[in-house]
Amino acid sequence: MSRMINKDTRICMSLAARPTNFGTRFHNYLYEALELDYLYKAFTTQDLAAAISGIRALGIRGCGVSMPFKQACIPLIDELAPSAAVIHSVNTIVNNDGYLTGYNTDYIAIEKLLQKYDVAPQLTFALQGSGGMASAVACALKNHGFHHGYIIARDDESGKALAAAHGYQHRHTMEGVTADVLINATPLGMAGGPEAETLAFSSTAITAAQVVFDVVALPEHTPLIRSAREQNKKVISGAEVFAIQAVEQFSLYTGVRPSDEHFRQAAAWARQV
Amino acid sequence: MSRMINKDTRICMSLAARPTNFGTRFHNYLYEALELDYLYKAFTTQDLAAAISGIRALGIRGCGVSMPFKQACIPLIDELAPSAAVIHSVNTIVNNDGYLTGYNTDYIAIEKLLQKYDVAPQLTFALQGSGGMASAVACALKNHGFHHGYIIARDDESGKALAAAHGYQHRHTMEGVTADVLINATPLGMAGGPEAETLAFSSTAITAAQVVFDVVALPEHTPLIRSAREQNKKVISGAEVFAIQAVEQFSLYTGVRPSDEHFRQAAAWARQV
Repeated sequence: MSRMINKDTRICMSLAARPTNFGTRFHNYLYEALELDYLYKAFTTQDLAAAISGIRALGIRGCGVSMPFKQACIPLIDELAPSAAVIHSVNTIVNNDGYLTGYNTDYIAIEKLLQKYDVAPQLTFALQGSGGMASAVACALKNHGFHHGYIIARDDESGKALAAAHGYQHRHTMEGVTADVLINATPLGMAGGPEAETLAFSSTAITAAQVVFDVVALPEHTPLIRSAREQNKKVISGAEVFAIQAVEQFSLYTGVRPSDEHFRQAAAWARQV
Repeated sequence: MSRMINKDTRICMSLAARPTNFGTRFHNYLYEALELDYLYKAFTTQDLAAAISGIRALGIRGCGVSMPFKQACIPLIDELAPSAAVIHSVNTIVNNDGYLTGYNTDYIAIEKLLQKYDVAPQLTFALQGSGGMASAVACALKNHGFHHGYIIARDDESGKALAAAHGYQHRHTMEGVTADVLINATPLGMAGGPEAETLAFSSTAITAAQVVFDVVALPEHTPLIRSAREQNKKVISGAEVFAIQAVEQFSLYTGVRPSDEHFRQAAAWARQV
């Protein structure tokens, strides 16, 4: 109840060019369910530096950072945690008495999933994409011990740069590439996008693979995930990435780790928009 | 319910060295009662300039300003409304798309009460105090048309300055002063203060007066108010000043003017701390 808000209620927020309701509903649901004296609100801004100064000056506890602020916020904060430093991208700022530390909980989630699903680093991978999420995945694969892999990206510059950064190879398409681990880090298969029905890898590529990892979180069952499940592959979904990153963010702000059941309820509530 | 907060919920806040729960509870009660999609939270800050920049950058709708920021905020905002300009003191900032206007709703309330109680400007007044609230009252008396009056202040510098600013006379004490209108703008009689039991003017002075105005809002019935009521004087209380200023502030933020009944409920709720 908003009537319960008091002067000591801690505030968390987010900054995005186009805020959605998801984070606000997700975090506030959990605050209420877990009886935490916190409040969450999405914001946008035309002045990132002033917004970050405000977070510091007002003692706002934490801030989720979305496009286009993930790199731009870096010079404005005090420290990068390893998860943000390795990919030079921040999605979570934690404010400890005016000292701002940036984290990347997407990166943390990808690392955790490679461990959880015990993806063997001796395998060869093909990672499709060369944007921010692809960069996070490539870096996590490297740190997980992968030596052999392909960055599949039509964009020459970013594809070559990402491959070179980690000692992998760049290819424009999957033509002639065979890989044990297929990872999609493009919007192919994303709900509401122009390629929502597109299978991110060919059926033949899926047949040849052992593990399929789709970073797309919505829908939970992308064409790629469905096809891989039908072929009985080991599957890692974007929904899992999202769940882990959201829980990490929540616990960085509050020190409290919600149960799987609470997470499920909060995510279901947050999606009812 | 905090679960109802969404990305479009408008935020109002306050800045004070020592925030209390009153404003947070008062405004949030009314938002809920009037079904306004707003949220209010008290803050403090060590960096007023950054806090005000943050208000602008985050699109926070309004900000109540308390000690010690009422003057300090002036160079940081874009415009002063007449209520703030005349006394060079801001207690309310309204943000219209990044353009910040400062108001002083205490001043507005005092002006309204002089009109409401039809206090004749031909009368002679004695105003006790020389701080911010005394300054607001003196200015309102001047604008209401008062020509003859005394500023009663032990502090020589501020007392003389306030009297000189408006063409009134300065006296250290009430000794030898007779006045038709007595106004207390000091902490004498304030709950919790060291002089909670002190009558701000002598019983003799009250007997000689027609109107008694106490700016102290808590308790509602100060020793001065009680004594003046017993002597059947026209009485203006600090509780009325507070009520009007709070309603003015609320309607500057929201465009909605709560009913007296809603105000009463919200103030009662806010006091239960």
